[in-house]
Amino acid sequence: AMAGWGWARAVRGLLLDVSGVLYDSGADGGVPIAGSAEAVRRIKASGLKLQLCTNETQATREDFVRKLRAMGFDISVAEVTAPAPAACRLLRERGLRPHLLVHDGLLPEFAEIDKTNPNCVVLGDAAENFTYANLNEAFRLLIGMEKPVLISLGKGRYYKETDGLKLDVGAYMKALEYACDVQAEVVGKPAKRFFESALAELGVPPEQAIMIGDDIVSDVGGAQQCGMRALQVRTGKYRPSDENHPEVKPDAYVNNLAEAVDIILQHL
Amino acid sequence: AMAGWGWARAVRGLLLDVSGVLYDSGADGGVPIAGSAEAVRRIKASGLKLQLCTNETQATREDFVRKLRAMGFDISVAEVTAPAPAACRLLRERGLRPHLLVHDGLLPEFAEIDKTNPNCVVLGDAAENFTYANLNEAFRLLIGMEKPVLISLGKGRYYKETDGLKLDVGAYMKALEYACDVQAEVVGKPAKRFFESALAELGVPPEQAIMIGDDIVSDVGGAQQCGMRALQVRTGKYRPSDENHPEVKPDAYVNNLAEAVDIILQHL
Repeated sequence: AMAGWGWARAVRGLLLDVSGVLYDSGADGGVPIAGSAEAVRRIKASGLKLQLCTNETQATREDFVRKLRAMGFDISVAEVTAPAPAACRLLRERGLRPHLLVHDGLLPEFAEIDKTNPNCVVLGDAAENFTYANLNEAFRLLIGMEKPVLISLGKGRYYKETDGLKLDVGAYMKALEYACDVQAEVVGKPAKRFFESALAELGVPPEQAIMIGDDIVSDVGGAQQCGMRALQVRTGKYRPSDENHPEVKPDAYVNNLAEAVDIILQHL
Repeated sequence: AMAGWGWARAVRGLLLDVSGVLYDSGADGGVPIAGSAEAVRRIKASGLKLQLCTNETQATREDFVRKLRAMGFDISVAEVTAPAPAACRLLRERGLRPHLLVHDGLLPEFAEIDKTNPNCVVLGDAAENFTYANLNEAFRLLIGMEKPVLISLGKGRYYKETDGLKLDVGAYMKALEYACDVQAEVVGKPAKRFFESALAELGVPPEQAIMIGDDIVSDVGGAQQCGMRALQVRTGKYRPSDENHPEVKPDAYVNNLAEAVDIILQHL
């Protein structure tokens, strides 16, 4: 595990995925992954910069940070890059008025956005709001638009909660893309623009940053596309078959965030 | 509308799509399309062979025929080619034990099939059964299989009911395909094997058969791939933009089934 880490000497900042790296999410709120809270403290004590880069769209950043802090993570709202604020910037730039198919917990992020007479659909990980009726409603709005605009907050395939794997927003995105014959615009990982805004908030250029995540495509592949190194942790949604992915190969595997931080700090 | 129909002289049999051609479906059961019941009678009186070729998967063929007869259509069970019986043949041939994500009304079609310890998922137009929980359950079974097998009863994008457009099974198929990184096997239109079994039941070779449907891809494109002529009716889910479809061009457009039958009978 220690060979081939010479590049770690150049590291000045870390982008961390959250669910599956800091904690395992679940209907019960989630369970911290052993050693991760301490690993965050060690990163900060080392002088490395830190930014969380998450596709979390079930809660506002404020609520999300409150949950992380309750689990023992020393994190502030400014240290979280998440899709909803990025989507709000995009909606404003382009004069788009969304119909929202998102989790109830995310709605406050869009409080200031004009949602009358929608001219696009914004899709998040709506979880229990992914009902047959709500999906038909979003579909009908899209198919009725002269040029349908579908904005998806991430395109994850699935994630792991404490009670099992759940379909993520990407699956529902694909359903609407197919039904409406449109291509969604992804705001969130693995979109390059999203990683670039996370790097901007981290304040470190890509060649001096490492992404650490449990998702081989969204975290590892997306970060590498931006010129960053990327590690996959063997926690969260990690599955052994990820190590044979036909297209994406992490710069290294680590058992968990704590091990990643151990190794990186040894190389500084 | 009358030019270019010379080929109709060779016609010996008609395959008819049902929803959107014979009637408009709806939660209320559906409404016959004007002239369609009379058109079915005229086809039979003319000596042309007739087979319904439907992707209907919300009811057994028996219940479906009962509904059609109540709307005034002179149709028997043997005159209906539908995905569920074809799927049952395939399951038996390959020793597959399905987990069913289908409409309650379709369950009796699978009564004789071993469903213990599933080694595949069969997806139909489950409508209200397309819940977040049921989709997660089907997903978890698939992702847990060494080699996931997903069988989809059709791959329609959407259909029209009296209260509006609804997402069809194809949208949910795409969601599961993406989440599990598998390709579904489609039983139903536009699969070539399905059209071939409908032609076998019609008893007419493809060059002597016409498909009449409202779906530019499933009905028209699928039939043409099998060497049949195909007409698109301007009823049901037909939309004017279908006439600019980049890949599929019907042999002719007709306003409805009655007009198609008028023209075909004039050319015999």
